[in-house]
Amino acid sequence: MQVVRWDDSAYRFAAEKLQKVELFASERFFLDIYCLEPGQTQKPHTHADSDKVYLVLQGRGSFSVGNETRKLGPGEATFAPAGQLHGIANDSPDRVVVLTLMTPPPV
Amino acid sequence: MQVVRWDDSAYRFAAEKLQKVELFASERFFLDIYCLEPGQTQKPHTHADSDKVYLVLQGRGSFSVGNETRKLGPGEATFAPAGQLHGIANDSPDRVVVLTLMTPPPV
Repeated sequence: MQVVRWDDSAYRFAAEKLQKVELFASERFFLDIYCLEPGQTQKPHTHADSDKVYLVLQGRGSFSVGNETRKLGPGEATFAPAGQLHGIANDSPDRVVVLTLMTPPPV
Repeated sequence: MQVVRWDDSAYRFAAEKLQKVELFASERFFLDIYCLEPGQTQKPHTHADSDKVYLVLQGRGSFSVGNETRKLGPGEATFAPAGQLHGIANDSPDRVVVLTLMTPPPV
């Protein structure tokens, strides 16, 4: 039985770029924790055949889905269906941490 | 852009049985919040072709995967790959809340 921690003991940051901490993965999905220092981003991109969900764990970032962008904080989540542009910008002075689901994973 | 709350404002309990609060769903996955009063369970079951992930948000319950059972609390998560028996028992005196991913959803 695989058990992992997904609280702040799992968070990992780096000055160079957004860090992705893998919690679980299979051929059906991945579930990661994305850790963004101030100024770091996941540039808007699309996946033709995969859905993505962002659930904010810490901090407030700007989340884009389609042509809309909203500031989301802890306890908020958003969904980018397959084919929709999506991304994150940590345009805040604090760290941002996001539980991120992708299903299926990129091929 | 769909935005939902997944904090305690989304939790919903009922005396009859475990409550499932849907956050997002598509033909690729569902992401729910399971809310268990003391004594409530999700009986061990399997899905031949779907993976399930349980992430504990609140309380401490007994989580089974395969033939193993462990008590898990907030900040812990476990993964039941397709074909493996899995379930939850809230054998504690307090409410248990679990972020639950299934991919793909049952047909």
